[in-house]
Amino acid sequence: MRGDLSDEIVTITIQENINQKAISLNQKSSFGKLEGNVLELSIIEAFYLMEKGRLSIYKNSESDEKLEANYIRNIIKENSGYAKYLVYRDLKDRGYIIKTGFKYGSEFRLYERGKLPGDGHSDYLVKIIHENYDIHALDFASYVRVAHGVKKTLLLAVVDDEEDITYYWVEWTKP
Amino acid sequence: MRGDLSDEIVTITIQENINQKAISLNQKSSFGKLEGNVLELSIIEAFYLMEKGRLSIYKNSESDEKLEANYIRNIIKENSGYAKYLVYRDLKDRGYIIKTGFKYGSEFRLYERGKLPGDGHSDYLVKIIHENYDIHALDFASYVRVAHGVKKTLLLAVVDDEEDITYYWVEWTKP
Amino acid sequence: MRGDLSDEIVTITIQENINQKAISLNQKSSFGKLEGNVLELSIIEAFYLMEKGRLSIYKNSESDEKLEANYIRNIIKENSGYAKYLVYRDLKDRGYIIKTGFKYGSEFRLYERGKLPGDGHSDYLVKIIHENYDIHALDFASYVRVAHGVKKTLLLAVVDDEEDITYYWVEWTKP
Amino acid sequence: MRGDLSDEIVTITIQENINQKAISLNQKSSFGKLEGNVLELSIIEAFYLMEKGRLSIYKNSESDEKLEANYIRNIIKENSGYAKYLVYRDLKDRGYIIKTGFKYGSEFRLYERGKLPGDGHSDYLVKIIHENYDIHALDFASYVRVAHGVKKTLLLAVVDDEEDITYYWVEWTKP
Repeated sequence: MRGDLSDEIVTITIQENINQKAISLNQKSSFGKLEGNVLELSIIEAFYLMEKGRLSIYKNSESDEKLEANYIRNIIKENSGYAKYLVYRDLKDRGYIIKTGFKYGSEFRLYERGKLPGDGHSDYLVKIIHENYDIHALDFASYVRVAHGVKKTLLLAVVDDEEDITYYWVEWTKP
Repeated sequence: MRGDLSDEIVTITIQENINQKAISLNQKSSFGKLEGNVLELSIIEAFYLMEKGRLSIYKNSESDEKLEANYIRNIIKENSGYAKYLVYRDLKDRGYIIKTGFKYGSEFRLYERGKLPGDGHSDYLVKIIHENYDIHALDFASYVRVAHGVKKTLLLAVVDDEEDITYYWVEWTKP
Repeated sequence: MRGDLSDEIVTITIQENINQKAISLNQKSSFGKLEGNVLELSIIEAFYLMEKGRLSIYKNSESDEKLEANYIRNIIKENSGYAKYLVYRDLKDRGYIIKTGFKYGSEFRLYERGKLPGDGHSDYLVKIIHENYDIHALDFASYVRVAHGVKKTLLLAVVDDEEDITYYWVEWTKP
Repeated sequence: MRGDLSDEIVTITIQENINQKAISLNQKSSFGKLEGNVLELSIIEAFYLMEKGRLSIYKNSESDEKLEANYIRNIIKENSGYAKYLVYRDLKDRGYIIKTGFKYGSEFRLYERGKLPGDGHSDYLVKIIHENYDIHALDFASYVRVAHGVKKTLLLAVVDDEEDITYYWVEWTKP
């Protein structure tokens, strides 16, 4: 499949009923957003599909130049941060449907395997921190409180220097 | 309606009393700027009208080649940034009159539904940031200060990876 | 009035019906917490009363050594951070009742002048940042979301290098 | 009941079959440690019993001088830290059996209501931090890891400036 890079969005053009794969990416796997006749993927989604060999990313829609994985990786590092991609990939590989958690102040909303975003509310909010990071107790309280307020559980993902990820469930409780 | 692309502006030529639709776009909906016998639309305004099926954009004024939506979308992505268009479209769909906020260091000035720019001052300044962005407290202060100085409220629009927009009112206060 | 420092808490001993001032500090002005026959003040509350000339702080309960303002100021700087005290003092001077906002991930809960904590819910959450600080958009979203979820307004307090404080109301909105 | 202070331990002397209350404190409620004919209470346990009116603490075993609550409170503040006592009291009031968690690098081990330490393993490890504290991600990982390794759940107790306590369950997970 071909995608074209532009403004940190990768666009797959859908030509009337031909590009069923692109439509299926959106409808079955909840990738990207349909805008007119294009499927727009975030750079993180696009890089995931690229790593899986399902997408080639071109310099722009009029170019024949395929971009290298490193080129895309660097865009991610300079923008979202690579940790965000690592957690995305890891959770995606485990079968979760992943959407942005911005409204809740966290990196991702997570839907259980098999549930689609339309079917109901997400179950978890994912907050990413790096192992060298200090979590201010106040911010910690804030992350948990948001999750609690919308009846989700906070999944704290700590990315270490070797890019391994450790996950923690965190719940507000009255013991 | 026909518009012609030229250097990131789309011009609609008005032929004496014939092109009432173009005049109405300007006078009733505050699109573009009348310059002699042409209505000049920003690429963002033009793309909005194109997406609504109200405008066809041609390669230039001497061409019969209609441009594809993707082509215009790419111009926007490479120039203004696509987030700016997304916020424009969202606010326009909600009925606001939108003008550039450049003079105030923000993306847009916003007029309440039904108010025309000539009738009075705009009510809001719109500042757009991306969810992966760090807001420097000094910049934040600057945005709000400018808005306050011209008796407007700052509307902070945060665009997330899924192209959804979250809005925040921000006002300087002495509690 | 005499208070004794110990473990960053300042204790005022209440001797049966004699120390009406201490009881009134708690019941009328919502300072501190009554524990048996002592009123325990946070170091911030105690320093505020000290600055107002209403409290002398002694090294410990068996000492006659009065502590200097600077000594207490340094304890605050090394623990809560001095910005937290500055905002506390400023809001207290304006007549607000101030309680910790920890459960909501913010520095303070604020009650309107004249309202006591028992009378109803607090109206505002106060989040403090320094002018040299970068607010990650995600954290910003988190602070506002918590406030919204508990029907409070976020009051962002930015402390600058000259220890002046600028306040901003921030509200999540669907324009 | 009489206890005698000595080097931050309070000892209750048990005179053959007379001091059933002291034995019961240990066997039914898991307070302290029986050493020959004395029950040794930590200063925290002793102060808890003192606040409940079940224990008088004397200056030493040869003295008739009863110590004031403030005097004991100050010993706690200067040694364990008062936060530790506050969490102890709160959890004790909720019916838990509480033992030191020192071996596990945490403040307390916690047994469910009704379970005695001999009956099985403790269920929770309690780690106490103050609201103004920054949690280093590495330390966080360490607390959870230790708890996980001994099949316990981490209960993070955050004490705020008003001496209120907020609790969080934290569990290591492979989502």
